[in-house]
Parts: sequence; C-alpha cells; structure tokens
Amino acid sequence: MTRSSGTVARSLAAELWRLFDAGRFRDALPLLSEDFEAHWPNTRERIRSREDFIALNENYPGAWRCTVRRIEEYTEGVVTVTEIGDGKTGFFAVSFFTVRAGRIAAAEEYFGENGPPPFDRSAWAERY
Amino acid sequence: MTRSSGTVARSLAAELWRLFDAGRFRDALPLLSEDFEAHWPNTRERIRSREDFIALNENYPGAWRCTVRRIEEYTEGVVTVTEIGDGKTGFFAVSFFTVRAGRIAAAEEYFGENGPPPFDRSAWAERY
Repeated sequence: MTRSSGTVARSLAAELWRLFDAGRFRDALPLLSEDFEAHWPNTRERIRSREDFIALNENYPGAWRCTVRRIEEYTEGVVTVTEIGDGKTGFFAVSFFTVRAGRIAAAEEYFGENGPPPFDRSAWAERY
Repeated sequence: MTRSSGTVARSLAAELWRLFDAGRFRDALPLLSEDFEAHWPNTRERIRSREDFIALNENYPGAWRCTVRRIEEYTEGVVTVTEIGDGKTGFFAVSFFTVRAGRIAAAEEYFGENGPPPFDRSAWAERY
C-alpha cells in the first residue's frame, strides 16, 4: 500500500465516524462504494447495501456519540477503535474498513459492551 | 515496517493464540517482553506484567478454544480477530499486539459477546 492510499483510507474512516457522531448518517452515503457490504460477526448479521447500512445506523435506538480512539492502517484499509456512548452506557466498536478506489467497500465490525469485570481478577489486573 | 518484521509480528500473534487454544498458557511467557503491559478498555483494566497476563488468562473460568479468524499487519504490530468459545457460549477478541525486538511488548484487547441482535433490524440486515 502506498502512503497516499493509507491516508485516503484513514480520512474516509475518520469522516464516516465524524458524520455518525453528528447524527448526519445520510451524508456518509457517498463515502461507501455502490457494492458496499458489512458484516457484524457478533450477531452473525450481513448488511448487503450501503443504503441498508446507513438506514440501520440511523434507526439504531438512542442518541450516541462516537469518539475514535485508535486508527491503524493495514494493506487493504484501516481498522478503527471507536468509543460509543449515550451518557449512561457505552461500548467499543472495532471496525475493519476495506478501501477500494477511494471509497469504503466493506466493513467488518465487532462490538463489545463496557462494564465491570465478569469475575474477581484483581490479583492480576488493576482498574483505571 | 519491513516485510520481515511484519512476518515476525504475525508469527508471534499466531503462536500466542495457538498456545492459548491448547491451554499451554505458561509456554507463551517467552513470547512477551519483560516490560509487557496489557489494556482491556471494555472493563478499564490494566495488566502490568507478562506474569500477570499469563496468570489471568490461565485462571479465566472455563475451558475455551481460540480460533484466529483474521490477522492484519500495521506499522508497529498486528491486530488479530479471535473467536473464543466453550461449546456453549462464545465471543470475539480483537487484539492489537505491539511488537518490539521480536517480542510482544503490548496488548490492547476488545471483547464482545456473541448472541442475537439487540432489537429487530431485519429490515436492513440478514442473519447468517
């Protein structure tokens, strides 16, 4: 991957999250390619068009802020870590965005809720 | 990052998951650097030594198989997607491994449980 294609991928991902954070879901449509497809493996869901992807995010219950915490470039795209919260609860999304011809062609996203440790493991881990 | 350092990072991550899958936690200790540190942002936990990281994984309740589903190389390391299951329940771990001098120097890991969609979104997503 050339430096410039990495920068394009990084910008696309950052712009998508900026628009989602602002609740401007429709404005993100042109960032996605016409054959865009998304996979959410935790729930085994496939979203087969960019229109469905935008509609699903738009119809997600609640009002959520999205803050990108990490972006790493890999050969075909970027992976982002985004903290998503509504002021009461929160979760992290890890999103692998495949970029082709200047647009996001695929997304594979993993979601994990925030909360206390599931068992007492304070002998080995400290909370921050 | 040179091609060879990417290959080293990829091998280290694959070997760590192979040993964890086999329940051979102690054997993974030499893959980690002496100043290794891990962060689990979902629970806001910091694990401050490689010994604690091995002990915590060893003492995690249950017997879990680990199957790596995706590995991507980035500048300073690799990110892995690993499906972890005990035959009844399962989750995905997304792990960012920073590699320095031929060992894993840091891990930042995100965990998300598997299950049905949290609300009816079948108008936009199909299950597989």
